[in-house]
Amino acid sequence: MTKWVYNFGAGVNDGNASLRNLLGGKGANLAEMASINLPVPPGFTITTEVCTAYYDNDRNYPAELKAQVDAALARIEEAVGRKFGDKDKPLLVSVRSGARVSMPGMMDTVLNLGLNDVTVLGLAAGSGDARFAWDSYRRFIQMYGSVVLGVDHHRFEEIIEHVKLDADVIEDTALTPEHWQRVVEGYKAMVAEEIGKPFPQDPQDQLWGAIGAVFGSWMNPRANVYRRLHDIPANWGTAVNVQAMVFGNMGEDCATGVCFTRDPSTGLNEFYGEYLVNAQGEDVVAGIRTPRPLSQVYAKPGEVSMEAALPEAYAELKNVRSILEKHYKDMQDIEFTVQQNKLYMLQTRSGKRSAAASLRIAVEMAEEGLIDRNTAVMRVNPAALDQLLHPTLDPKAAKTQFAKGLPASPGAASGAVVFSADEAELRAQKGESVILVRIETSPEDIHGMHAARGVLTTRGGMTSHAAVVARGMGRPCVAGAGSISIDYGAQTLSANGVTIRAGEILTIDGATGEVFAGSVKMIEPQLSGDFGTLMGWADEIRRLKVRTNAETPLDAETARKFGAEGIGLCRTEHMFFDPQRIGAVRQMIMAKDEAGRRTALAKLLPFQREDFVSLFKIMEGLPVTIRLLDPPLHEFLPHGEAELKEVADALGMDAATIKERAEELSEANPMLGHRGCRLGVTYPEIYEMQARAIFEAAVEVSKTAKAPVPEIMIPLVGTKRELDITRAQVERMAKAVFEETGKTVEYSIGTMIELPRAALTADQIAESADFFSFGTNDLTQTVFGLSRDDAGKFLPAYVEQGILPKDPFVSIDVDGVGGLVRIAAEKGRAKKPNLKLGICGEHGGDPASIAFCESVGLDYVSCSPYRVPVARLAAAQAAIEAKETHFRDK
Amino acid sequence: MTKWVYNFGAGVNDGNASLRNLLGGKGANLAEMASINLPVPPGFTITTEVCTAYYDNDRNYPAELKAQVDAALARIEEAVGRKFGDKDKPLLVSVRSGARVSMPGMMDTVLNLGLNDVTVLGLAAGSGDARFAWDSYRRFIQMYGSVVLGVDHHRFEEIIEHVKLDADVIEDTALTPEHWQRVVEGYKAMVAEEIGKPFPQDPQDQLWGAIGAVFGSWMNPRANVYRRLHDIPANWGTAVNVQAMVFGNMGEDCATGVCFTRDPSTGLNEFYGEYLVNAQGEDVVAGIRTPRPLSQVYAKPGEVSMEAALPEAYAELKNVRSILEKHYKDMQDIEFTVQQNKLYMLQTRSGKRSAAASLRIAVEMAEEGLIDRNTAVMRVNPAALDQLLHPTLDPKAAKTQFAKGLPASPGAASGAVVFSADEAELRAQKGESVILVRIETSPEDIHGMHAARGVLTTRGGMTSHAAVVARGMGRPCVAGAGSISIDYGAQTLSANGVTIRAGEILTIDGATGEVFAGSVKMIEPQLSGDFGTLMGWADEIRRLKVRTNAETPLDAETARKFGAEGIGLCRTEHMFFDPQRIGAVRQMIMAKDEAGRRTALAKLLPFQREDFVSLFKIMEGLPVTIRLLDPPLHEFLPHGEAELKEVADALGMDAATIKERAEELSEANPMLGHRGCRLGVTYPEIYEMQARAIFEAAVEVSKTAKAPVPEIMIPLVGTKRELDITRAQVERMAKAVFEETGKTVEYSIGTMIELPRAALTADQIAESADFFSFGTNDLTQTVFGLSRDDAGKFLPAYVEQGILPKDPFVSIDVDGVGGLVRIAAEKGRAKKPNLKLGICGEHGGDPASIAFCESVGLDYVSCSPYRVPVARLAAAQAAIEAKETHFRDK
Repeated sequence: MTKWVYNFGAGVNDGNASLRNLLGGKGANLAEMASINLPVPPGFTITTEVCTAYYDNDRNYPAELKAQVDAALARIEEAVGRKFGDKDKPLLVSVRSGARVSMPGMMDTVLNLGLNDVTVLGLAAGSGDARFAWDSYRRFIQMYGSVVLGVDHHRFEEIIEHVKLDADVIEDTALTPEHWQRVVEGYKAMVAEEIGKPFPQDPQDQLWGAIGAVFGSWMNPRANVYRRLHDIPANWGTAVNVQAMVFGNMGEDCATGVCFTRDPSTGLNEFYGEYLVNAQGEDVVAGIRTPRPLSQVYAKPGEVSMEAALPEAYAELKNVRSILEKHYKDMQDIEFTVQQNKLYMLQTRSGKRSAAASLRIAVEMAEEGLIDRNTAVMRVNPAALDQLLHPTLDPKAAKTQFAKGLPASPGAASGAVVFSADEAELRAQKGESVILVRIETSPEDIHGMHAARGVLTTRGGMTSHAAVVARGMGRPCVAGAGSISIDYGAQTLSANGVTIRAGEILTIDGATGEVFAGSVKMIEPQLSGDFGTLMGWADEIRRLKVRTNAETPLDAETARKFGAEGIGLCRTEHMFFDPQRIGAVRQMIMAKDEAGRRTALAKLLPFQREDFVSLFKIMEGLPVTIRLLDPPLHEFLPHGEAELKEVADALGMDAATIKERAEELSEANPMLGHRGCRLGVTYPEIYEMQARAIFEAAVEVSKTAKAPVPEIMIPLVGTKRELDITRAQVERMAKAVFEETGKTVEYSIGTMIELPRAALTADQIAESADFFSFGTNDLTQTVFGLSRDDAGKFLPAYVEQGILPKDPFVSIDVDGVGGLVRIAAEKGRAKKPNLKLGICGEHGGDPASIAFCESVGLDYVSCSPYRVPVARLAAAQAAIEAKETHFRDK
Repeated sequence: MTKWVYNFGAGVNDGNASLRNLLGGKGANLAEMASINLPVPPGFTITTEVCTAYYDNDRNYPAELKAQVDAALARIEEAVGRKFGDKDKPLLVSVRSGARVSMPGMMDTVLNLGLNDVTVLGLAAGSGDARFAWDSYRRFIQMYGSVVLGVDHHRFEEIIEHVKLDADVIEDTALTPEHWQRVVEGYKAMVAEEIGKPFPQDPQDQLWGAIGAVFGSWMNPRANVYRRLHDIPANWGTAVNVQAMVFGNMGEDCATGVCFTRDPSTGLNEFYGEYLVNAQGEDVVAGIRTPRPLSQVYAKPGEVSMEAALPEAYAELKNVRSILEKHYKDMQDIEFTVQQNKLYMLQTRSGKRSAAASLRIAVEMAEEGLIDRNTAVMRVNPAALDQLLHPTLDPKAAKTQFAKGLPASPGAASGAVVFSADEAELRAQKGESVILVRIETSPEDIHGMHAARGVLTTRGGMTSHAAVVARGMGRPCVAGAGSISIDYGAQTLSANGVTIRAGEILTIDGATGEVFAGSVKMIEPQLSGDFGTLMGWADEIRRLKVRTNAETPLDAETARKFGAEGIGLCRTEHMFFDPQRIGAVRQMIMAKDEAGRRTALAKLLPFQREDFVSLFKIMEGLPVTIRLLDPPLHEFLPHGEAELKEVADALGMDAATIKERAEELSEANPMLGHRGCRLGVTYPEIYEMQARAIFEAAVEVSKTAKAPVPEIMIPLVGTKRELDITRAQVERMAKAVFEETGKTVEYSIGTMIELPRAALTADQIAESADFFSFGTNDLTQTVFGLSRDDAGKFLPAYVEQGILPKDPFVSIDVDGVGGLVRIAAEKGRAKKPNLKLGICGEHGGDPASIAFCESVGLDYVSCSPYRVPVARLAAAQAAIEAKETHFRDK
C-alpha cells in the first residue's frame, strides 16, 4: 500500500529534509526539525504524490488516503490530548500547502481549523479567554471563507467595520468577546448567503475542504504564472501539512514572527526578523499591523524588540537559529509562534535573499568554515548577480525626496509611474522603464513586478509580498511607504502635498527606502569585496573562458572591468549605422558596379580601422572575434518617403532610383535571404575592405601595444566552399597588408555555426576553419523554423501552455538546437581536435545554457558586458556540476 | 612514372572501354574497337589526368608529357608508313577531345593537322589529287584558325565567297585545285593579319596548339553551361585523342557518316544514319550539305542511300553494327569514314536517343535476350520519361500547316516565337511558353533550348546540333525546315508567303516535323506497350511505393492512371482559395472570437467534405494523406487597395478594419511565422473543422465504395507536445463523427518532418506519430537558411560557381538535408520500428533524391502526377543499385 501520509513531531518522524520532493519543503523540514528535537507541534504531511494522483485521476483522491489521514489525526489527538471536534478540549489544526520549492504567497493556508459553534465555547472555557476564542473563530471563518469557499475578503472587512462603528471603537484590539461573537454571526450569515448553504460546522468537512483548496490552488492562475517565471514544472505538485495549532494570539505572553538567521537584504550576520505580540502568523506577512524588529540591534528608538519584550523566548529562538544554521549550513527563513512564553517552530527553509546578501552569506559562511568554497560558489544564483552590477543613485546628485519607505529590495530604479501590473507589462513591452506603484502587491501583480524596473508600495513590511517577491526577482523595491497616499481612480500618488501623476518619472532607492520625484543621476555599481572574493573562487574553478559581445569602446571597457577575457563577437554592421558612415554604406549599395562599390567602401575603411584600433587597445592582446558584415543590404536603406528623399539628396540621386533599388533588394524572408557570407561571395570587395581594416588596425596597434589576436569570423556559412571563398578574400588582404607594412600579426579565420547545414557538415567545414562560434540565436530560428520577429504572436502562449519549457531564445533548447551544437562540436573536433569552439548567441549569458556549453566541451562563452560576471559564476557552477556528475557516474 | 599517353590501333591497345574515366569515352572506345579487331586508324589518347594536372598546375603540362607524346607519334608514323611533317609522305592527324561522358558539340576538333605549305604538295603528289590536298589544307587552316587561334569563322567564309564570285561558280564542288590554293593564300594572309603572326607551319607547333585548345575548351563558358545542365563535375577533365587521318574527301569512293545502330528517334531496330560522299566528318554534322540516308529503308524517292551507293562498305559497316551491339549490349552511335572503299571506324559510343526510343530499345533488347530486365530498367533515364507523358497534337484538330522540317525530337509544343536563346530564357522565367526559332543552333543556345517548350531550325539534319541536344533534353524539335526563311532583324519567319512575327504563337510537332501557325489542340499521350512493359518490370523490382501530391480530382485521376499508389500530400489550403470558399475563409480570419470563427468554418465544412469525398472515391481504398492547414493566415487576405475594398464590401466590413487585421497578421519572415500546427494550437476550431470534413467524407464513401484510409498529417511540428495537442483535436473529431454516424473507418495521424528540430527530436515525436512525411522543401529552406522566394538573387550563381553542386530545391542535399532525414528516420524507427516514412517535397519526383530515399529506407515517395512514372522507374533503379551496393559491400 502506498504511504500517502507522513507523520512528524511528538516523537514520530516518518520523513526528513531529504524527502523534499515527496513532502514539499515545509513538510520535510518540519520532520527534520522535529527529529533534531526542536519544538515542533505534531502534525502530518499529505505527500505531493497525492497531488499528482489527484490531477491524474480527474481530481479524485487515492482510495487509501482517508484512512491514513484519520490515523494520523488520531495520533495528533493523542499527542496533544485534544480531540478534533471535541466540545471541551477541541483539537485545532492549521492546513498549509508546501511545494518542493518555496512559492511565497502563492498557495493558501487555513488556521484554527476545527472551530465551530460548539468547539469555540470549549476553546474559550479551556483558555479562559473568550475574546481569544471568538477572535480565532472569526479568523477561521474569514480565512476558510475566502480561501476555501471563495468569498471576497472585502465582505468580511465590511462586517468588522460595521461592528466597530456600532461599538464606536477604532482599533480591533478594543473589541470585546461579544463584539467578536457578533462578527462571527455576521460572517456566518454573509457566507451562507454567498454560498447558498451554512458555513460547515463538521470539522471533518472543514478539513477535507481545506485539503481540497490547497490542491486546487496548485493549478490556479497565479500559481501557474509563478511557476512559469521560476521554471517550476506543474507535475511537481504540492504537499499539504496538517498540524496542531499553537496560538500566538492568546495574550501578551504570546507572539508570532518570521525571521532570517542572517539579514536577507545585506547578508549581515545578525538575527533579523519581525514579530507581533498577541497575533497569529498571517498578521505579520499580511502587513495589517506593522511588525516590530526581532533583535535589539535593528530596533529604532521607541520600538520594542522581541529581544526586549520576550527575552526568554528570544533566547530560545536565538539558540534555535544557531542549531539550524549549523544543521542546514545555510541561512534559514524561520516561522515561529510563542504561546504563553513557550516557543514553537512552524517552519524553516532556506531563506530568500538579495543578490548582495547571497554573495556575502556565501563568502562569510565559507570563511567561517561552515561550507567549502565550491558550495559557496554554488550558493549564489548567477542570474541574480545582474542586480549588483547595475547603477545606484549618485549620492552627490541633486534629488527631491518625495517620501520614504522600507528598503525592501536593494538597487535603484527610475521610471514612469504605473498603477497596475497589466499596464506595467504593456509599457515595458514597448521598451519603457516603469515603476509599479501599489498600495500593496498580491500574487496577481507578479507579471507587472517582473516587467517593472522597480516596485513601490505604501503598505507592508520587509517580509510583505512585495518585498519578498521583489528580492527574489532582483527588482529594487521600497515597501510600506506609509506617508504616500495612492488614488487609483485619479491615477496619482501624493505625499507631503506633492502629487505625482501616472506617467511622470519617479526614482526609488531600494537600499535606503527613499523615493524621489523625477529621475536621479545614477552611478556605476560599487562591487563589494565579497564579489571579488567569490568571483576569484569561481575563476579558479571554471574551465570555460568568458568573453563579451561588444562593438563600442564603452562596452568593451565595461566588459573588461567585469572580467571579460576577450571579445567573442564584434558585429561590424553596428559600426555601419553611425551617421558619419551610413552615407558611404548607402552609396556602396546604390553603386552600379564593383568599381563604384569600391569607391564607397574606401570611404568606410578609415572608420572601420579606427574602430578596430580602439577595441584592440582596450583588449590588450586578448582575442577579438570580428564578424564580417552579416545583415542583408536592404537593412541599411531608408524606409519612409521622407527619409528616402533625404538620402537621395545626400547621394545626389533621385528618390525613385533609391526606392527601386530598395524594392529590388527587399526580401520575402530576410532572415533566410541574401546575407552573411552570401554577400561576401557576391561582393568580395566588402569583406576585403573589412579584412584590410582589421589587419591595418592590428599592425598599427602592435607597434605600440600588445599585439592583438584578431579572429575573423565569417557569418552564415552553410557549405565549406563558402568559407573557402571568403577565407581566401581575407587571406589575400592579410598578405597585402603585411607586405605593405612589413609587419605581421597572428590571426585566425573561423566561422559562425548558425545554420543547421553548417552543423551537419561541420566535419567538412572544420577543414577550412580555425574556430567555430555557435550563433545560437539564428540557429534557434532555423532549427525551430521560428522567426524571432514574429514569434511574439504565439511563443508566450507556447511557454505558458508548456509546449515549450522555456523561451528558446532565452535559454538554449538542449534537445533541438543543443543537439545540433553537439553534432557540430563532435564532427568538428573529430576532424580537427584542437578546433576552438565558442558560443556568441545571447545564450552565452544564460546560466542554464552555459551549463550546456560546459557539457559539450566548448572553450568559451561570449555575452553582453553586464552578463560577464553572471557567466563567470555560471561557468564555475557548471564545472562543479560536471565534476560531480563525473564522480557520480564513476 | 605516370603514364599520361595511351596507344590504340595497329596492334597496340594500352586501354579499353573500362578506362572511360581516364581516357574519356572516345579514347576508351577507340582502344576497345581496335582490340576487337575493328578497323581503327592508329592513334593515342592523352589522359584526362593531364587535363586535371594542367588546371591544377596553372595551365602547365606534366614534365614527362612531351616525351610520351613523341614516342606515341613515332609509333603511328611507323604503323602508317608516313612521317609528321615529311615533304613526301606526310602524316596527318586529327586532334579530338573526349570527355568521360559525351558532350556533343561542346568540345573542339581539328582535322588534317600536319599540313603546311610543304606537306600539302606531298599530299597532292601522293594522292594524285591536288584538289583534295588543297581542300584539306584550307579545311585545316579554317578549323585550326577558328578553334585554336580564335579567328571568327565568318572571315573564312567571306574568302571562299570571294573566290567563288571571282570564279563565277555557285557550288564548292565546282572549285578547282587552283581556286582552293587561292583560298589557302587568302586564309593565311587573313589569319596572319588577325593574330599578328603567320599561320604556324611547324606540325609540332600545330599539334601542341591543338592539344592546348582542347584542354582550354574544357573550361569555356559553353562547356560550363553544358556541365551545369547535365550535372557533370568540372574536375572530370577531358582527354585528347590524336589519330592518323583517313579521308572521306578523296573522291567518289570516299564517304563519311554518322549512324546509330537503331533509330534514335523511335527505337526501331533499323540501321539509321546519314552519310556524305566525298566529304569530311564535319560536313555531316555541320549541316552545310544535306546528308543522305545510310539505309535504303530510310531513303525517300530520289535519295541515294549508302546501301545503294557504296554497297561493299555498307555491308562491312552493317557487320560492324552487329558486332558492336553484341559487344556493348547497347545502341551505338558510330562515326566512320570510307577512304577509297575501305571502312574506318572513328568513334563508337552509347547513342543518345529520345525517351520513346530508349524505352523501346531497352524493352526489345531485353526481349532479344541481349540484356536482362534489370539492365533494361537501368537503361531508361527516368527524367526523360516526362516527355512521353505530355500531350501530343490532336490529329483531328483543325490546323494550318505553315511549313515542314525533319522530325528531330518527338513531342509537340506550342508557344510564342522567340529568336534568341536569351529571350527564350527571359520569357520562360516569366512563365511564358516559347518556341525557340533559329536558322541553326550552336552550343551558345543551349540555355535557350532548355528554357523553350520546343525548338525549330531551318538548317541541319537529324544529327545536327539542334536535333541531338533537343532529344537529349526531351524538348520537341523540328530541324532543317528549309522552306522557312528567318529575318532576325525584322524578327519574323516566313514560309509560302505567310509571315509570323516574334511573340505570335507557333506549334511544332517533333514526331512529324510539321510546323503550324497558331496553337493546336493537344491530346493526352498514348503510352506505348513498351512503356507498360518497362513499368511492369520496374514495379516488380522497386521497394519504394509511389504516391502523388494532389488536391483536385483531375490531378488525382491523372496520377492514378500513371500508377500512383495513393496520395502522399493533399494540401488542404489549395482548397481554400476557391472563389466559392475564400469569402468564408476571410470571414474566419476577420472574426473577433472563436464563435465567429466557428460560424465561418461551418460554411467551409461542406466544401471540404465534398473535396475529400471525391478524392477518396478516385483513390479507391488507397491511402490518402491529408495535410491540415499550413500557410499563415495573411496569405488568404487581399493585398491591393481595390481588392481590399471588394473583400470589405463582401464581408460587410470597412476596408480599414481588414487592412488593420492584415497588418496585424503580417510577418517579417512568414516562412518562419505563425503557420502550420501553430495555427492548430492557437485556433483549434480550424483543424477540428478539417478533421470533421475528413471523417464525414470517409464514412460517407465507405458506405458505397471501398473504405478510404485517411492519413491525417499535422504540418510544421517542432515539438512532440504540438503533435499531442493537434492529434487530440483530430481524435476528438473522429470519435464524434463515428458516434454520430455509427460507423468507423481506419485512419492514422502523423506529421510532416520539415523542421530541423522535428528531425533532431524524432524519437520523441515518433511516440505520438503513426507516420512521418518528410517535407524536404521547407527542410531545405531551414537547413540552408535559404528562402526559396529570395534565393533567386544568388542561388543560380552558387550552382554555376560550384558552391553548391546542384540546386538543393531540385535535388536533395544529401549531406545537409539528407543528413537530417537520416537522423529522423533512424531516431523515429528506433522508437517505433514500424513507423511509416515517406517524402512529399518536390524531391519526391527527382531520381537522384529517390535514390537517396531508397538508401534511407523510406516507405514511399510522393510527387506530382506527371512525375509518378518517373518516380516508379527511379525507385526501381534505386532498388537495383541498392542491391548492387549491398553485394559489392559483402
